Amino acid sequence: MTRVFNFSAGPATLPEPVLRQAADEMLDWRGSGMSVMEMSHRGKEFIAIHAEAEQLLRELMGVPANYKVLFLQGGAIGENAIVPMNMLRGRSSADYIDTGEWSKKSIKEAKKYCKVNVAASSEEGGYVRVPKQDTWKLDKDAAYVHICSNETIGGVEYHWTPDTGEVPLVADMSSNFISRPIDVSRYGLIYAGTQKNVGPAGVTIVIVRDDLIGQALPITPSAFDYKIQADNDSMFNTPPTYTIYMAGLVFNWIKAQGGLNAIEANNRKKAAVLYDHLETTSFFYNPVAREDRSLMNVPFKLRDESLDDAFLKGAQARGMVQLKGHRSVGGMRASIYNAMPIEGVVALVDYMKEFEASHG
Amino acid sequence: MTRVFNFSAGPATLPEPVLRQAADEMLDWRGSGMSVMEMSHRGKEFIAIHAEAEQLLRELMGVPANYKVLFLQGGAIGENAIVPMNMLRGRSSADYIDTGEWSKKSIKEAKKYCKVNVAASSEEGGYVRVPKQDTWKLDKDAAYVHICSNETIGGVEYHWTPDTGEVPLVADMSSNFISRPIDVSRYGLIYAGTQKNVGPAGVTIVIVRDDLIGQALPITPSAFDYKIQADNDSMFNTPPTYTIYMAGLVFNWIKAQGGLNAIEANNRKKAAVLYDHLETTSFFYNPVAREDRSLMNVPFKLRDESLDDAFLKGAQARGMVQLKGHRSVGGMRASIYNAMPIEGVVALVDYMKEFEASHG
Repeated sequence: MTRVFNFSAGPATLPEPVLRQAADEMLDWRGSGMSVMEMSHRGKEFIAIHAEAEQLLRELMGVPANYKVLFLQGGAIGENAIVPMNMLRGRSSADYIDTGEWSKKSIKEAKKYCKVNVAASSEEGGYVRVPKQDTWKLDKDAAYVHICSNETIGGVEYHWTPDTGEVPLVADMSSNFISRPIDVSRYGLIYAGTQKNVGPAGVTIVIVRDDLIGQALPITPSAFDYKIQADNDSMFNTPPTYTIYMAGLVFNWIKAQGGLNAIEANNRKKAAVLYDHLETTSFFYNPVAREDRSLMNVPFKLRDESLDDAFLKGAQARGMVQLKGHRSVGGMRASIYNAMPIEGVVALVDYMKEFEASHG
Repeated sequence: MTRVFNFSAGPATLPEPVLRQAADEMLDWRGSGMSVMEMSHRGKEFIAIHAEAEQLLRELMGVPANYKVLFLQGGAIGENAIVPMNMLRGRSSADYIDTGEWSKKSIKEAKKYCKVNVAASSEEGGYVRVPKQDTWKLDKDAAYVHICSNETIGGVEYHWTPDTGEVPLVADMSSNFISRPIDVSRYGLIYAGTQKNVGPAGVTIVIVRDDLIGQALPITPSAFDYKIQADNDSMFNTPPTYTIYMAGLVFNWIKAQGGLNAIEANNRKKAAVLYDHLETTSFFYNPVAREDRSLMNVPFKLRDESLDDAFLKGAQARGMVQLKGHRSVGGMRASIYNAMPIEGVVALVDYMKEFEASHG
């Protein structure tokens, strides 16, 4: 068996010890005689797995007691509808900050349910920065302010937390969730698909301040009503049990690494290896403003796009896969989530140097 | 390792060879150097896995070419809302047949989106039968007629296909999906959560006639719009990739068993072992009308309910778990899905006889 370095933007590489444990426990979870996949979600075994996953996440992120942690379905694209359904709370409009492809998707979907005020946008200039907060035109009557904390396609990340006063801040954190410590109390709601830093695809984690729920629109499907799910420990419908189990294993792995402080330090080190190299070459380039560069997704282009295919083919031959950029922007993208070892980033930079030397 | 006989109603027991294969392939799927969990849903490896799962399901069920097969999220409880959102098609009401707890949930949720006509109900008498079709009061202008083809809690199953004329028949088949051959062309839409006969929880399979989609209500979340998902091969949002892979392994296992004819023969044999015994004893009883008894979920009660705990404890000691009936009805329930070996049912009946002999 040879494992590759997998730079996929999601679903993405997972810690090898986590996969080994999952394989070991596949037919018999700790003497239960069952796979976790086979367990009733109402049985004591799975209830313990679910509770441990939630507890670990609360501990890692320091989630305050007045926040609910929900394990739902439908991904961030589902949440783009589910958030306004739940969070309008009798108001008719919401503020959105537009920083790229994922913000645009959120805005388009929200317009089905409310008036959307795009309070700031970095579209001009091609989405290469986060608009400074002093340029945001916020509406004090907005139901919430929505940001995408890390644009997976554009590689643009917030390295600061917006101040939205009394208006709740809502963040799509899908691609930088649990990549570093944050102050949860600054947010009204955080949501994230699991398939980047948490585990397999199929769970959406929602962390929401409890005073904000309970006023969903009447058209909200019960399975996506935060209050109903909170009152039922995310088990109003059958939860994606195995994915929650995998998430718990990943949370345990993060804790064993030293928690989110240690994870952040490692992520900064990995990103520096790649961005530092991009500073030294004009053969490759990354267009994002330096202070807004993502620690998770590093898009870069070859100045000579005719070499793209050769670059990807060579990478594949060296055991580095999924480096092709998103189809909407082209070029390359290295996603270097928590579980990507630094050896993968070093190997990529070594290959970039080698490729430049032979094609530059 | 000792595997138990797991009678859970879902998530439920899976074929052991499928679990072994999943464990074997966990760290490296067929030389790809990746777990299936780690694969981009846009990569060639996962696209092949997804296409194979769909193709196998089409083959097993004989799905006609003019039907879309979708792999979505949210379970049957999610579909209870998503079905009317998609299937009203400009009409204002839908007919529902009420055969128990799951029908009632569907009816309650549908009322958020349309007028619901309960065209027949077996509530009187305690949900122990399927109402005969000649008693149904169908509305020819209804958008669709909804049935629950197998009531997981009540153990009541349709052993015939309703004739709804020009009005599309919609079936929640969660708990008897792929348990026997059916004529898909008699249905407008079939939906099923995967956590009974298909695999782990987290995928909802929707099979829908293609002329019925494309008229979703404007409030339908894009992730749950059948047309949008059909146009995107169920990848408008990131699909629950690993669960789809597991479903494919289960479909392959069914094919290796001889397909749905062989599966049905085996399911009938297993159910007969249990129901035949229930006919011979008055210590235990099943209240369901003989012709409507479920082949999948067999609820039964002890005449003397004070012995329930002793019965369950003895079963557990003999490696038989999850026999406790649904909390809403009490008693016992043996779910004997495709993957439950006949040895499990025989062991259960042996234990029932032994228990009766010592407590009768």
